[in-house]
Amino acid sequence: MDLDSIRARLVNEFRQFIETEYVIDDTETQKPFECDGLSIYRGMPLLVVLPETVEQVQRIMRACHAAGVPVIARGAGTGLCAGSTPSPEAVLLSMSRFDKIIEIDRLARSARVQPGVRNLAISEAAAAYGLFYGPDPSSQIACSIGGNIAENSGGVHCLKYGLTVHNVLEVQMVDVTGELVTLGGDSLDSSGFDLLALAIGSEGMLGIVTEVQVKLLPTPEVAQVILAAFDNVQAAGDAVGAVIAAGIIPGGLEMMDGLAIRAAEDFAQAGYPRDAAAILLCEIDGSQAETESNCERVSTIFKELGATEIRISQSEAERALLWKGRKSAFPAVGRISADYYCMDGTIPRGKLAHVLTEMETMSQQYGLSVANVFHAGDGNLHPLILFDSNRPGDTEKAEEFGGRILELCVEVGGCITGEHGVGLEKIRQMPAQFSDAEVSQFHSVKAAFDPPGLLNPGKGIPQLRYCQEYRSLRSQRDAKSSG
Amino acid sequence: MDLDSIRARLVNEFRQFIETEYVIDDTETQKPFECDGLSIYRGMPLLVVLPETVEQVQRIMRACHAAGVPVIARGAGTGLCAGSTPSPEAVLLSMSRFDKIIEIDRLARSARVQPGVRNLAISEAAAAYGLFYGPDPSSQIACSIGGNIAENSGGVHCLKYGLTVHNVLEVQMVDVTGELVTLGGDSLDSSGFDLLALAIGSEGMLGIVTEVQVKLLPTPEVAQVILAAFDNVQAAGDAVGAVIAAGIIPGGLEMMDGLAIRAAEDFAQAGYPRDAAAILLCEIDGSQAETESNCERVSTIFKELGATEIRISQSEAERALLWKGRKSAFPAVGRISADYYCMDGTIPRGKLAHVLTEMETMSQQYGLSVANVFHAGDGNLHPLILFDSNRPGDTEKAEEFGGRILELCVEVGGCITGEHGVGLEKIRQMPAQFSDAEVSQFHSVKAAFDPPGLLNPGKGIPQLRYCQEYRSLRSQRDAKSSG
Repeated sequence: MDLDSIRARLVNEFRQFIETEYVIDDTETQKPFECDGLSIYRGMPLLVVLPETVEQVQRIMRACHAAGVPVIARGAGTGLCAGSTPSPEAVLLSMSRFDKIIEIDRLARSARVQPGVRNLAISEAAAAYGLFYGPDPSSQIACSIGGNIAENSGGVHCLKYGLTVHNVLEVQMVDVTGELVTLGGDSLDSSGFDLLALAIGSEGMLGIVTEVQVKLLPTPEVAQVILAAFDNVQAAGDAVGAVIAAGIIPGGLEMMDGLAIRAAEDFAQAGYPRDAAAILLCEIDGSQAETESNCERVSTIFKELGATEIRISQSEAERALLWKGRKSAFPAVGRISADYYCMDGTIPRGKLAHVLTEMETMSQQYGLSVANVFHAGDGNLHPLILFDSNRPGDTEKAEEFGGRILELCVEVGGCITGEHGVGLEKIRQMPAQFSDAEVSQFHSVKAAFDPPGLLNPGKGIPQLRYCQEYRSLRSQRDAKSSG
Repeated sequence: MDLDSIRARLVNEFRQFIETEYVIDDTETQKPFECDGLSIYRGMPLLVVLPETVEQVQRIMRACHAAGVPVIARGAGTGLCAGSTPSPEAVLLSMSRFDKIIEIDRLARSARVQPGVRNLAISEAAAAYGLFYGPDPSSQIACSIGGNIAENSGGVHCLKYGLTVHNVLEVQMVDVTGELVTLGGDSLDSSGFDLLALAIGSEGMLGIVTEVQVKLLPTPEVAQVILAAFDNVQAAGDAVGAVIAAGIIPGGLEMMDGLAIRAAEDFAQAGYPRDAAAILLCEIDGSQAETESNCERVSTIFKELGATEIRISQSEAERALLWKGRKSAFPAVGRISADYYCMDGTIPRGKLAHVLTEMETMSQQYGLSVANVFHAGDGNLHPLILFDSNRPGDTEKAEEFGGRILELCVEVGGCITGEHGVGLEKIRQMPAQFSDAEVSQFHSVKAAFDPPGLLNPGKGIPQLRYCQEYRSLRSQRDAKSSG
């Protein structure tokens, strides 16, 4: 059957149990679903469907399973790895109508929510009980908890409070055949295999999440931010290591380099020192007593390691202002460059200075500037490669440069993603990280959940044939560059 | 081929690459491997092999895979769910010679160790750097980190520091075909599916762990224990909830009931109030300032909720003594009863009083006493059922009573294991927790890692046919008891 007939048949079937307007088959209305936050990847879907109940999701999955049609789930569309990019053969299943907070349990310190609920909305609802939800991606105003689960999202505070995988207790998920399964539960341990962690970060490849129970954390009594300026990046990197080695776990520990500092300062007027080579922003939170003592210890460490300036926020307004600069770093860089490509990789903390030096060399090779903003405490880099998509060849150069940065992360013992996921974007670098045996294992697990391979096909896990090509091309390149 | 011929062939093959004495084929030398810590389950192996290198493990797995012979991995043998009970058709693979601490990385706060290293040995080696390994099962002097991974072990401090799954960064594992794969890594996030968490708690059913990287935590500046006595169990249960709801996360929060208190006091002379209906032991740790302030807050909460006595440890010796009573509760109960059966289940904190009352009713029905010792903070129960294996029918009654306790845990929204795992012991209660769709999913995942089903067969996951029988028998039983 051709795609038009399949579309017509599914539209007809879906409209028997979903209101007409939520089954979208015309190109114009489909347009907003064309890409996620990484808009260099685009595609049109077979059709878009927006169910509202678990039963509707089950019926959609049953119909698609019977017809052999792939399904791509989508949350709020803020993802940065092209994890929910549509494809013309696949139904795009938007979970945005699953937007209810079902229950907040103060004693168990947990919230039960639908996957379309915005990340920040959970903390807002929990605030009345003195609780909050830990992971705070920069997109937290807009991104949904279902999308956070798909990508195992982090945020500034994940150094202390962990990623999504550390903060979810249970998910309910509709599998490829339409069966509803529960993974995880209230308890710390759970019998059987730990399928919960497997589902988190699985990018819609194992099932469609329809309900989530998250942990809530007690809101710290106080929080203060320490800004420290350094006249070289090495010293700033050493200071990060020294804080961690001293046994202090800051709420967040962020680094920005010169280019990022100046762009952010022009945009946000946060009072950052424009002439610094690097700044650190270190948030200390906890009880009053604990915060005071840790602020003092961290300031001492920063001074000993050569900080040229130290500022401790004296009010909530000042704390918010110091963070405003960091949080607006991406749009700020957007003002100084036509386009930018935000990378995401992780390295061991000790390799920070080495990786920054290598990136500087590559930046000169490719003729493209890089601004660095990163979660230094947990070694999660976000280099922003500046380019101009109207300049011929620039986009390709930026993509290649980005790929090389990811390979560098793996070379120093790190990982090709920190919190953005793999999706379509980083699937090319997966063989740099994983052996064929490991990639095969991913395929086996995928097949265990999704034997016909209908859930978000082509994302996340590369084909073995591609891995072999990659290795052969890369060894040619390495031979050339060393020859 | 009969078992004797298979044994002879494998012994011959193994001795080509492993010293003769480490390939054990005589019954007498095999005897110590007959059971793990749950000695009511016993069995003899086909043969016992103790490899020393990863390559030897790979060769063993290749040989067994080729011959279609099952393999049961064993750590220190301290497990409490019959997870490594031998079987006459299977090779018993003891990892006890993998006992080296490979590296401690102070800056990354991690340790790389072989799986046979004892849990406590990691903290001892890390102490020089002011670090320790979080999970602390009661058996920590003896149990190995590989066994901890198999069962996702916890301990008194897991309320604050998490279970094994929260403290392992990477495992290297030999799969059923002899291939070496790495799961997880240094970074907080990892690309691809999260197979690391899947491996933790998988009871040797997915692969043989050969190397482990664990997180280390900074040793808290100080720790103090608060003992609070209550004249009824309900009040003690409420006090646990109130501490958690106040936003305090104690290092540990344990409860003991009257029978357990008196047995422990007779044994350890810790100064427990012998006439209390329940005591709580609450450990507060952190910086000096934080600990002082939290001790005060917790004491106030305990007083408000009716504590009849409160004692705060004033020295390390006093803290150790207060814990000694709790830690020796199992042997202490062993003195007052010929045998005891230690159960392990988890319930929501709010159901504590209800579950204790129900257990009391069952205790009268079965005519067997129960002493309760538990990790109250995270709802992990350890009821000790007292029985006498020399009294005909007593063992069977204890087992049935234990099964009913696990079912009760599931009924109130809990889980049939807290930290001991499923193994042979709790496989019968798995259908109380999981639907057929969920059990099928476990089988698919198992098959993805181990297509021929050679790794620790018959443990952890029940057959679907058994699940159906269980449901039918249980509905008959429920009809009878309500009829």
